[in-house]
Parts: sequence; structure tokens; C-alpha cells
Amino acid sequence: MPQFNPIGVFDSGVGGLTVLKSLRELFTAENFIYLGDTANVPYGGKSKETISRLVNSHINFFKEQKVKALVLACNTASTLIGELQDPGFPILGVIAPGARAASKATQNKRVGVIATPATIKSGVYTKELLSCDPSINVIPVAGTMLVPLAEDGWIEDPITNLIVQRYCNVFLKQEIDTLILGCTHYPILKSSFTRIFGNSFNLIESGPAVCADVIKLISSEAIPANPISKPGTLVVTITDSSQEQFTRTMSRILIGQDFPEVIVL
Amino acid sequence: MPQFNPIGVFDSGVGGLTVLKSLRELFTAENFIYLGDTANVPYGGKSKETISRLVNSHINFFKEQKVKALVLACNTASTLIGELQDPGFPILGVIAPGARAASKATQNKRVGVIATPATIKSGVYTKELLSCDPSINVIPVAGTMLVPLAEDGWIEDPITNLIVQRYCNVFLKQEIDTLILGCTHYPILKSSFTRIFGNSFNLIESGPAVCADVIKLISSEAIPANPISKPGTLVVTITDSSQEQFTRTMSRILIGQDFPEVIVL
Repeated sequence: MPQFNPIGVFDSGVGGLTVLKSLRELFTAENFIYLGDTANVPYGGKSKETISRLVNSHINFFKEQKVKALVLACNTASTLIGELQDPGFPILGVIAPGARAASKATQNKRVGVIATPATIKSGVYTKELLSCDPSINVIPVAGTMLVPLAEDGWIEDPITNLIVQRYCNVFLKQEIDTLILGCTHYPILKSSFTRIFGNSFNLIESGPAVCADVIKLISSEAIPANPISKPGTLVVTITDSSQEQFTRTMSRILIGQDFPEVIVL
Repeated sequence: MPQFNPIGVFDSGVGGLTVLKSLRELFTAENFIYLGDTANVPYGGKSKETISRLVNSHINFFKEQKVKALVLACNTASTLIGELQDPGFPILGVIAPGARAASKATQNKRVGVIATPATIKSGVYTKELLSCDPSINVIPVAGTMLVPLAEDGWIEDPITNLIVQRYCNVFLKQEIDTLILGCTHYPILKSSFTRIFGNSFNLIESGPAVCADVIKLISSEAIPANPISKPGTLVVTITDSSQEQFTRTMSRILIGQDFPEVIVL
């Protein structure tokens, strides 16, 4: 696999850009190609069969682009990771890294997970957390309305605060000390979570968590690092031609980073 | 076209059931087949190209089912009605009937339209209203969050009330006397609108409006009425296998009517 080839980053929409941001901060020389499946967003209310059909078609796209590794920067898609393993084509999900980070962070062993209905229904976070530490008490909540709010840019908005507060009431009652934002869209609404839990609370995001797995992949030489010392390139693609809202939210997420024009596939 | 053949009713999700309900109340002997494209809901943020691709594939499904007429019980899909006309296969949209009903109802010629971003962007409601009465002042608003709220069943909910209030502030300022609920999902949230405008306000829904066009189609003998006097049958199909929420909302919308089990295509 040529070292200059890009790393692929996939999400149902704009949320995976929160992961892309972390990856680009750490792997400054790497080239990235991002695909947001905006024609089919949101994934979180769809069945496993529908999600599997969509994800597999996008994996073919990334293979055609000759990416050297693919990060599923979408928790809902990552629930399928066990079925997607393909020798010679490394695919990384965001669930196992997030669960590992949470199991290290928690002191009182009470961990909340907020994610899409499909991710919660899969039970994968609970399984991963218990395999890290069987003594962890997992409190899962489906945050159905949060992807629409994030996709539509309702950021730092009193109504978003109310909706997040409603979802988080059970976490407060259950006295969790760690919360996994189990959907890559949710960091877009992070300020609504920090309003409730404060700045020093363990809020686990997928982006920083999955970076550790990419470091491992590169240091094990499973994929070669790009040796060029100049900044890597970025290509951003989406599947629906309505791009105004995507571009607007992208510019908020990637603030401080250069980003290209969005290509409609 | 055999008279016993069903009438097709299409929507992106659960919203078109509000139209189906009106049709079944009026055409008690007709057989109906409903398709909710729940694998691809919501349509309202997608581009015209994506919507066109989806709608055309569903029209083929209805042709295979040998429906004698198809009602696009989805305003976003109905924006394409001009491009979908097919001799010998009557397709009815919900936009022109809604615009006609609103133009008859308004006294002060100030008509609000709340609909999905795709419907608002198409400008079709404004065009239809002005062709009914060029003196009408049209105030359009995109109600992006309302389909997710309706699909997820946030009915008679204080947060839904707040979101509807935010969208409607411009209508209050502009002193409209008539509001088109320009998305078949919105009647599911009707109580949030009547809280603001009261019960005697002209709230125009797609269901009753399109019934007039079906009556016209039958009385012109463009399609034959089912002559059987016993109650017609109903088949409800969806495209995604997650059906709990759909069935729950269906039972609220079709309250007082018999309804069958949902079939996943």
C-alpha cells in the first residue's frame, strides 16, 4: 500500500468531521479523503440491514480511491465493524476506542452512553465497556433528536440545551462520572453537554479516542506513514447536492484548519 | 384500469398517513396501498436530484402493484409533480390542492406556508398561490426540525411547542390569517399549531385538500370508482425494517380506523 495514499474517513453526514479534525491535528502530513453520506443522513433510526447496505457501498468507494486505511467516523456504522473486517484493508471503528477511553477515565464505574437509536439497540457500547471492565455499570440513552439538531446547525441554542437536558436527566440521577458521546455528531453540540456537566467532567469523544488506534496501526507498520514533511491534503465529498448547511457546519467544526471546497459525488 | 385496483399513497415516512386517513374517510369502499420510504426519511433536506431518483423508483413499485391512481402524500415529492406526469397513470400531488384551499380561505390575502427546506426552496407553493390569486402575499418558512419531531413522536410536547413557536413568530408578525401545513408530517404536530393560532384559524392540511382532486378524478371517470359497497382494504408498506416507531405513530394518526400490520419491503 503506497505511503502517500490517503486515509479515508466516513460518516453519514457532517458529524465525522469532528473525528477528521482530531486526525488532522495529530497526523499533519497525512492525506485525507472524507465522505459524508448526506443523501442518506441520518443513519441512527435505520435498521441494521439498511445501514449495512449503505456502508458496504461506501467501502467500495474508498477502495476505488485506494485509501490505505478507513476510519468509520460514525458510531452507527461502527456497530457493524465485526462484519466489515477485510484482510489487507484496515477499517477502524470508533466504538472500541471510545469504550476503552471511558473505562480508563471512570472512577465510580458508572458510565453513560448517549448515541443514536441504532447504536444503542446494537448493545455494542455495553459489550465493549464490559469487556474492558466487567464491574462498569452502563447507562445507555438514545438521543434521537441530536443528529437533526447538529445537521441543521442548532448550536449553542436554548432549545438544544433543553433537549440535551431531557436526555441527560437519567445520567444525573444515576450519578455517572463519565459520558461517552457515542455519535460523532454530538461534539458539535458539546456546549450543551458542558452546561450540564461542567468542564472538568469526563466527556468522551470519538475523535481523540480513535487517534490512538491510528497511531497503533502506523507504529505496527500495518499502514505506512506519509514521509513527506509538508501538510497533507484533504478532499471532502458528500452524496447530496444540497451543500449549504454542510459547508456552514464544516466551517464551524474545522475552525482553525484549512479546508477545501466540498465535492458532490 | 380495473375498478377494484387500489389507490396508491406515497410518503417519505409516517406523515402521508394523515392524507391516507382523509382519503379512507371519504372513499370508504376503495382499496389503498401505502408506501412510507422510512429507509430514506427525511426527504426535506435532500436535493432535487436525490428526491427525484427516490420518487421515480417508488412510482415503479406502485405501477407493479397496478394502482389505478397515485397520491403523492408528501409535499417534498409533490414539488416534482410537473416532471412526473405519465399518460394513463394519474399522479396527484398535494401542493396545488393545498394552495387552492388556502386561496379560498384567506380574507386578508396574507398566507403563511411552513414546509421542508426542499419544498420552500422549490418555490412551488408561492407559484401555485399566485396563480390562484396574484394579490396574495406569501410568507414561506422552512420548518426543518418538524419532520424529525413527528417521526420520533414528540407530540403534545413542550419542546415541540417551543420549536413550532419559533418557526411561527414570523407568521404572527406578518399577521397571516391562513397557514398551509405544507408537509404531511405537520398535522401530527397540529396541537402545537392550534396552541398558537387557536381553533378557528385557517390551518390548511394536505389530506382534506387532495380529497377534492380525487373526487374530480373519479367523477370525470378518469379512474373508475370501486363499486363494491363493503369497506375497502388497506396495505401499509415501509422500506426500513425498524418499524416500532412507525407503528406507534400510525396507531395515533389512524385512531378510530382499522389498520393492518406493517409490511417491510
